[in-house]
Amino acid sequence: MTVDLSADVGEGFGAYRAADDAALLRVVSSANIACGFHAGDPGIMHTTVAECVRLGVGVGAHPGLPDREGFGRRTMALSRHEVYTYVLCQLGALDAFARVHGTRIRHVTPHGQLGNVAVSDVDWAEAIVDAVRDFDASLAVVALEGALTKAARSAGLPVAVLGIADRAYREDGSLVARSSPGAVITAEREVTERVVRMATDGVVRAITGRDIALRPDTVLLHGDTPGSVDLARAVRAALTSAGVGIEPLAARL
Amino acid sequence: MTVDLSADVGEGFGAYRAADDAALLRVVSSANIACGFHAGDPGIMHTTVAECVRLGVGVGAHPGLPDREGFGRRTMALSRHEVYTYVLCQLGALDAFARVHGTRIRHVTPHGQLGNVAVSDVDWAEAIVDAVRDFDASLAVVALEGALTKAARSAGLPVAVLGIADRAYREDGSLVARSSPGAVITAEREVTERVVRMATDGVVRAITGRDIALRPDTVLLHGDTPGSVDLARAVRAALTSAGVGIEPLAARL
Amino acid sequence: MTVDLSADVGEGFGAYRAADDAALLRVVSSANIACGFHAGDPGIMHTTVAECVRLGVGVGAHPGLPDREGFGRRTMALSRHEVYTYVLCQLGALDAFARVHGTRIRHVTPHGQLGNVAVSDVDWAEAIVDAVRDFDASLAVVALEGALTKAARSAGLPVAVLGIADRAYREDGSLVARSSPGAVITAEREVTERVVRMATDGVVRAITGRDIALRPDTVLLHGDTPGSVDLARAVRAALTSAGVGIEPLAARL
Amino acid sequence: MTVDLSADVGEGFGAYRAADDAALLRVVSSANIACGFHAGDPGIMHTTVAECVRLGVGVGAHPGLPDREGFGRRTMALSRHEVYTYVLCQLGALDAFARVHGTRIRHVTPHGQLGNVAVSDVDWAEAIVDAVRDFDASLAVVALEGALTKAARSAGLPVAVLGIADRAYREDGSLVARSSPGAVITAEREVTERVVRMATDGVVRAITGRDIALRPDTVLLHGDTPGSVDLARAVRAALTSAGVGIEPLAARL
Repeated sequence: MTVDLSADVGEGFGAYRAADDAALLRVVSSANIACGFHAGDPGIMHTTVAECVRLGVGVGAHPGLPDREGFGRRTMALSRHEVYTYVLCQLGALDAFARVHGTRIRHVTPHGQLGNVAVSDVDWAEAIVDAVRDFDASLAVVALEGALTKAARSAGLPVAVLGIADRAYREDGSLVARSSPGAVITAEREVTERVVRMATDGVVRAITGRDIALRPDTVLLHGDTPGSVDLARAVRAALTSAGVGIEPLAARL
Repeated sequence: MTVDLSADVGEGFGAYRAADDAALLRVVSSANIACGFHAGDPGIMHTTVAECVRLGVGVGAHPGLPDREGFGRRTMALSRHEVYTYVLCQLGALDAFARVHGTRIRHVTPHGQLGNVAVSDVDWAEAIVDAVRDFDASLAVVALEGALTKAARSAGLPVAVLGIADRAYREDGSLVARSSPGAVITAEREVTERVVRMATDGVVRAITGRDIALRPDTVLLHGDTPGSVDLARAVRAALTSAGVGIEPLAARL
Repeated sequence: MTVDLSADVGEGFGAYRAADDAALLRVVSSANIACGFHAGDPGIMHTTVAECVRLGVGVGAHPGLPDREGFGRRTMALSRHEVYTYVLCQLGALDAFARVHGTRIRHVTPHGQLGNVAVSDVDWAEAIVDAVRDFDASLAVVALEGALTKAARSAGLPVAVLGIADRAYREDGSLVARSSPGAVITAEREVTERVVRMATDGVVRAITGRDIALRPDTVLLHGDTPGSVDLARAVRAALTSAGVGIEPLAARL
Repeated sequence: MTVDLSADVGEGFGAYRAADDAALLRVVSSANIACGFHAGDPGIMHTTVAECVRLGVGVGAHPGLPDREGFGRRTMALSRHEVYTYVLCQLGALDAFARVHGTRIRHVTPHGQLGNVAVSDVDWAEAIVDAVRDFDASLAVVALEGALTKAARSAGLPVAVLGIADRAYREDGSLVARSSPGAVITAEREVTERVVRMATDGVVRAITGRDIALRPDTVLLHGDTPGSVDLARAVRAALTSAGVGIEPLAARL
């Protein structure tokens, strides 16, 4: 029994920082690195990839919408072609930093609204998949189950299913909207138990109280709120105690 | 006797266009494509690379300073490390588009103040060379003779010397500043004669009236002013009439 | 019988230009000046306002969405509060240039998708109106009839109805979508006749062939396509021949 | 005996924050608010001005260079005209938010390299002063003594001399470069004693050990490093204990 632990990192910009990346990268086995659109810049990409390599953390791309002021969280009316070229540009930019540090991008996890829309919008899902496949068909697509994972499988790309440690699920496997009560789970014990169940039994309790199947390839940990790094550490410790091995996504695909 | 003809292309942004790229790409054998910093965007990079491939024009990167409003023409106090990461990011972004169109970047021609400063500033010259070498040591560096060509040769990179069709030279081989009288040569006959002399005899008449040695690997043509595309065509025709073959940079190195 | 002639100007950015503003400003009586979000920058705002003052052209704001790469033409999911602060910021920026040239903004014409969405979206319409009223309640709101004009009238703001010279109308007074056949009218004679009918009889022939009521306070002329400045001049000449006076919006409200 | 206490605030961007503004605004009597170039955005300007008004803190503009990625700390080769239009645009933008909250900008404190260069560069100093005077000749210019204060006095603008709480001075009244040993003073007792001496005796001990004259109109407090808000509170308490009244800049000019 193994699982990957991942986090979104490199999401600062210039003098700004979004999370305690140095601490997070000591907890996870894979990193989703911002590529300069919704967040990140060349200096931060360079530093973040270097740190991943130093710590043996797998390097993944975390492309987003071209809206830094909105942190990639505001939907934009982009054509399929725009989504394709935007994702491609970000893969290339991040991969340059991976190359100079002796590694390569191994997976792609769309950020914010790019990822959210692609769960249900076939055009965006296919645009992302086309960009990934045209760039490097060995890259894994990491997402919640939906249009994007479906398009990726159709294209023959490796797919990794995402589990989110601190979010509530509906019975259909989608996330409860952040604005709804109970959407974010903050109690450490509850979060760790949920993650252990996902990893060991392949189930999670939906917000309705009923168990649903969910066996994630990678569990996403957050590092951008107070206490979130401690929570990330607790999840890792709980998995280890439960006999679940932590290994980078690339080793699992 | 052969020479490469090159032009800066893909320097639009969003709805804006800087030159008649479609016409220019029918005249040149190599293209310096903007990479999204001083100009260019993912959609334009995609289209421009596609057109180069279709026309058999060699693909090169034209990285610039991160100052779109100033079109990369305003010096900024950047550290060596910043220059390194900025160039690397641009190489990666453009190369992604080259890859999906079945080609690769073959040369790098710094734009505007990034290139101007690197003619004399050793730190910036070495930063550019480090980025090119770390990204792909087979890429040629294209520049006027100076700190950048020197650093590139020291690093073992292929170097291509740039000749500029419509600019006056000083006796030391540097360009007469654009603000000085006589800096820009507009008469078609004078421009074509100068280019033919560079290509056949390896000399150009300096602004002082004295001939100096200049045997460029590539002659840069402009397309962003009225009549410049006609001038570019006239240069190509004059070279052909003089028995000079036109071939992409990559074939000459 | 009088009408205002207006055009969108100052829509360049850095070294880029979108239209022949110098020619357009000699044809129109009012200008909609880009405010640095979808287009425009401080240098261009300064120059454009100066030229308006010199030529006696009324100064208006042309605020847009914060998406320069998409030229403000891509819808973004902005909250009402975001729209409010974005419009306010643009009014303040442009007004600073008006002040130093001894004038003030007199009207506001939302650009692109900011304007299109506000024709039907009450939240955006009210956000724009709130920003205009809080900034200066004497400013006129210029728009096609719809949610925005309605909200402006409710708030007690002056309203100017927009007529578009070269676009086809549906029977309900809305524009035929640009992507539909016949949406853009290019024949000079047809355009001038339509504008003269709007100004003299207060009607325009809808795409169905039936006349509808339309008595615009200002007729919008375009300057960003080949031949558009000539068309603008022809419209002005036709109005003058028909005995219609041209006067700035501010004089009509 | 009175002095103003000021801080740079509103220097976040989108989802990023640079300092604990809510805490700082409870300590100071005047605020230097970022205007959207080096930092800040419309939403943050709106919130920050509202908070200043609520707390009775004087509103000032903190214009910077158009380089968000470099936080306005990297010198750029801008012409005098560019500096003029950039400052003007920022004054207008911030003033719009001041107007809707029932107040106005009262002073201008250039940020980072815009301010640093203007201490010695006459062109930039005069460009800033021209912009301030043309916008509103009642605005105070806040700066270290140098070319900018000199140009402001020549133009008849109110001038407020800046004292910096936690930085070492040279004997000529300029700051010790941040990179030199001893440039930043971190010991609370030393900082508070220095500020009290500035406010009561009009002197500060230079890094050489010799006292120099410095009677600031406003003392700048920082809030962007760990412990800096506590230090700001300690400075305020020490001044109060020493019988120095705290009052907004506008009340002193």
